[in-house]
Amino acid sequence: MSEGGSAKPRPAAEVSEWSAEADVVVVGYGVSGAAAAIGAAAEGADVLVVEHTGGWGGAAALAGGFIYLGGGTALQKACGFDDTPEAMHMFLSAAMGPGLDEAKIEVYAERSVEHFDWLVRCGVPFRAAFFDRPAWEPAGDEGLMYSGGENAYPFADLVKPAPRGHLPQMADKRTGERGGGYMLMLPLTKTAEQSGARVRYNTRFQRLVLAADGRVAGIVARSFGEEVAIRARRGVVLAAGSFAFNAQMVARHVPALSGRPGSAVEQHDGQSIRAAQAVGADVANMWACEAAVHTDPGLMIRGIVVNARGERVINEDTYPGRIGQALMLRHDSQGFVVADEQAVEDAAANRVSSGMPAPQPRWVSDDLTELEAAMHVPAGMLAATVGLYNRHAADGQDPVHHKAARWVRPLCPPYGVFDLRGHTSGFTLGGLRTDIDGAVFDVDGEPIPGLYAAGRTTAGIAAGGYASGASLGDGSFFGRRAGRAAAKR
Amino acid sequence: MSEGGSAKPRPAAEVSEWSAEADVVVVGYGVSGAAAAIGAAAEGADVLVVEHTGGWGGAAALAGGFIYLGGGTALQKACGFDDTPEAMHMFLSAAMGPGLDEAKIEVYAERSVEHFDWLVRCGVPFRAAFFDRPAWEPAGDEGLMYSGGENAYPFADLVKPAPRGHLPQMADKRTGERGGGYMLMLPLTKTAEQSGARVRYNTRFQRLVLAADGRVAGIVARSFGEEVAIRARRGVVLAAGSFAFNAQMVARHVPALSGRPGSAVEQHDGQSIRAAQAVGADVANMWACEAAVHTDPGLMIRGIVVNARGERVINEDTYPGRIGQALMLRHDSQGFVVADEQAVEDAAANRVSSGMPAPQPRWVSDDLTELEAAMHVPAGMLAATVGLYNRHAADGQDPVHHKAARWVRPLCPPYGVFDLRGHTSGFTLGGLRTDIDGAVFDVDGEPIPGLYAAGRTTAGIAAGGYASGASLGDGSFFGRRAGRAAAKR
Repeated sequence: MSEGGSAKPRPAAEVSEWSAEADVVVVGYGVSGAAAAIGAAAEGADVLVVEHTGGWGGAAALAGGFIYLGGGTALQKACGFDDTPEAMHMFLSAAMGPGLDEAKIEVYAERSVEHFDWLVRCGVPFRAAFFDRPAWEPAGDEGLMYSGGENAYPFADLVKPAPRGHLPQMADKRTGERGGGYMLMLPLTKTAEQSGARVRYNTRFQRLVLAADGRVAGIVARSFGEEVAIRARRGVVLAAGSFAFNAQMVARHVPALSGRPGSAVEQHDGQSIRAAQAVGADVANMWACEAAVHTDPGLMIRGIVVNARGERVINEDTYPGRIGQALMLRHDSQGFVVADEQAVEDAAANRVSSGMPAPQPRWVSDDLTELEAAMHVPAGMLAATVGLYNRHAADGQDPVHHKAARWVRPLCPPYGVFDLRGHTSGFTLGGLRTDIDGAVFDVDGEPIPGLYAAGRTTAGIAAGGYASGASLGDGSFFGRRAGRAAAKR
Repeated sequence: MSEGGSAKPRPAAEVSEWSAEADVVVVGYGVSGAAAAIGAAAEGADVLVVEHTGGWGGAAALAGGFIYLGGGTALQKACGFDDTPEAMHMFLSAAMGPGLDEAKIEVYAERSVEHFDWLVRCGVPFRAAFFDRPAWEPAGDEGLMYSGGENAYPFADLVKPAPRGHLPQMADKRTGERGGGYMLMLPLTKTAEQSGARVRYNTRFQRLVLAADGRVAGIVARSFGEEVAIRARRGVVLAAGSFAFNAQMVARHVPALSGRPGSAVEQHDGQSIRAAQAVGADVANMWACEAAVHTDPGLMIRGIVVNARGERVINEDTYPGRIGQALMLRHDSQGFVVADEQAVEDAAANRVSSGMPAPQPRWVSDDLTELEAAMHVPAGMLAATVGLYNRHAADGQDPVHHKAARWVRPLCPPYGVFDLRGHTSGFTLGGLRTDIDGAVFDVDGEPIPGLYAAGRTTAGIAAGGYASGASLGDGSFFGRRAGRAAAKR
């Protein structure tokens, strides 16, 4: 049995005493849970949030805080960008698959502006400033940034690019203040509690309670060593994060991610996914993962990223998470950045400090043959790659991977090689299959009565591709809808 | 809802009439079902096999017939090969992952010799002759062949190679007689029926029947338009094949395989996997697939296989299914064979007719630049690849992908390019998680009482890697064990 304990449902008839009850019980107080609580309370429901840890926020509060929004938000307009729901829909369709949930993509793009306005009404602060350097996050408190490769090949050729990474305004990072995720979760949890939602901390979800007619009637959890049953008069919303920290589930579903969980919290143990599967819930995209590569995007973009054979893997000006996905899923998390002095200097001059030390080359040499030996790259492979890159770059072109001309320049000796081997981590994107109102599908594609889910407990708007902000985005968007739907039952 | 109809369990209390009953009910009469029937009957159980189609054999009867066996079988010995269970175990551990089920690999290698002897006792004929040419199948009725890349990089360097692809003796293929899979299934089904197993054809499994205590008590099926309930006094064995022909499931779990099912039959609709999930069964390796590339392995091995950017993808002397997996899962099913006149002539002279027409080059030219333009390979990429391959081949080496020296030779103009784009197909390797006796695990890792499964309805001995014969091998091996375990309950 998994560490989380049994996930099998308990028949309602076997519950001798309910230790609490509410119209809507929300499992998890991260971004999806908070949004679900607000959504349910807005429909007049009595809401109880059950949270594993001693505090609010989940993985969201520790995140950079990107929320993927667009279609013409007030923030996009204030920064001078045109965007439409159609363009956003087209981009998501092109970039987030395979494994797309078309219905979710459609409603998400369609109602993204409204969702931004709702976040603002909840008190989430955004500063109307656009950040335009290659980085994982802005240098300061800018509110808008490209976060999905919209302005790079192949997407820039398909859809008019618009930046859609919306960031809550944080205090300047240099002062040590909390980041964008915190500044998202602070107002959302405040709003939830002002709406009347109650929160029970230190209460670890275990399993669902099932009524004789198959309806989900509540949950069983553990709190300070005791088992408690909590009744949900209308519905349960599972919003307890990914399964990135369940090593067994990762081994069975996303082996490339084994040993590499990141941007998630230990509580992402998959228990709520298993508990729903135990009542017949269906899952989708369990193979999919977000993947970060731990280095400076400003360095990658000015150099080339190669695999263990010295072959380039992707256009280095795309969303750095796509580089991470390519390395993790297609190149066994093995890779290097090859750059020259100018690239290193320019990257350093433009680097956004993220608390990580500045990248240091592992090897420096004028001689590519020497570097190949050091890197254990087959003889001649790196030289062939650099030779061809330089030949094309002399014409300002990259016909191999289509990096934009502004980032293409022949690399000159001495070369510095930065070791990326094993420097990837990520979290899982698969989970429960839900409709656009968070109802959890059974294997027949029918909703399980009384059961809702949102966020990384579910398969969301991203699968084969990803953009920073897709998880806080779809977690808050579909979390809110799930809360409303549960309340209306 | 999926085309297969509802997969949700029916409570036993709602079954008004059992139209048949048996100690053990086996769903599917392919290799795993036949083996399960024999195994259950050997334990004295009254067995009923329920088969969707009008005849026995399933996908197995249409297959080439490889059964992956080793550890020192009588056939291996007669052909002059040493093998041990330890070597077989080491090879499978190195080659079949990620996604290995260690317990299954261990018992499978340990008892493989006994399993071969059992197949012989069942009447499966094997001719003690070894076939040593690169091909998908032997030219004639030879009984032994390399079928997993054991004699190629990286496995040949890790474990002493032994061929383990065991083939039932067929009448000469040139006469149009049936192949090895037929010659496997003919004796197995005869043995099953001689053991007393009854078979009900044209009966399509729908869902499980669940007793009030959670035990699987039977199945509901459709037969000539009528719904029938069949009681299983001891257990149900699900042996109904993969989900390769369920387009929705493939899209959700193995998107790279979408639109490319192969080496499977339409009845592989995943209904039995869904029905087990509906009672809380766990799944594993749903992302994994076998993948064939539809061309002559003897051509690939004498040339080079490149992706859409003109980069080589793998050592071309490995199991051709590994080339297929690499193309499908890492290169979007886009690739080419580049060969020269001598390679094409040698391949043609050694080609094993498989009923497919001889491969024809799509483009022939002395000029790699011209070929790059025709192939839409970025300028210079194919020339760089061929240049480096030839440079190394002049020394009889392939340090890039480690093809064995005997297959390495500089390629000379004119070059012929064979188009492999989209020429891949395969079937799914993921499914129900079972123990070594076929008991189906629930999400807690506990057996679901009365429920067993085997073959491609389950996650078996292969996942991230594959060898020809792994499916008929683990289907027959674990099918037999599942039948026995169900009978003993």
